[in-house]
Amino acid sequence: MADRYNKLCPVGRAMNVIGDDWTIMILRDLFNNETCKFQELMDSLEGPSPTTISNRLKWLEEQGIIEKNLYSNHPPRAAYTLTGKGKSLGPIVLEMKKWGENNP
Amino acid sequence: MADRYNKLCPVGRAMNVIGDDWTIMILRDLFNNETCKFQELMDSLEGPSPTTISNRLKWLEEQGIIEKNLYSNHPPRAAYTLTGKGKSLGPIVLEMKKWGENNP
Repeated sequence: MADRYNKLCPVGRAMNVIGDDWTIMILRDLFNNETCKFQELMDSLEGPSPTTISNRLKWLEEQGIIEKNLYSNHPPRAAYTLTGKGKSLGPIVLEMKKWGENNP
Repeated sequence: MADRYNKLCPVGRAMNVIGDDWTIMILRDLFNNETCKFQELMDSLEGPSPTTISNRLKWLEEQGIIEKNLYSNHPPRAAYTLTGKGKSLGPIVLEMKKWGENNP
């Protein structure tokens, strides 16, 4: 996804980071809950495959949007939180929330 | 796309309307130029197939986000503009623009 949209456009740059399907919903959960385990995301999102969620989380981690922390080593289990850069996406998600509230 | 995300969530409702790939870039062009012809969108977006653009435009028209106006009958050629409802998506696109400007 990194190069789908024109990087010379700021909207394109944002969309290259957050424009894949389900990504905004993952961010919503992280804004609402601060920390999310993989299974919590699965239960909340109701739709994407585990592979899709896993790919989105990897991408967001690579982009510095989220941090992964192991809360169990055997078996390895991770929880995810927003970084400072991730939190700076808040106004985008907030404006979507407002729009959805105004368009029920 | 209408039902991909949970409609009980306002973020999900917004994403059901604008969450398909390329849709945000089409909206960006309409905010920047007020009116866009199909070929202008093709030239600007550099990437999606004509079918993809056509599907996105149809969807946005069905959702009351854009209006289609014929500027030629032979051959039929259309130009697109945002409706009031479409213009209410402005803050979402604007926050993406701001984020992209802050993350070059």
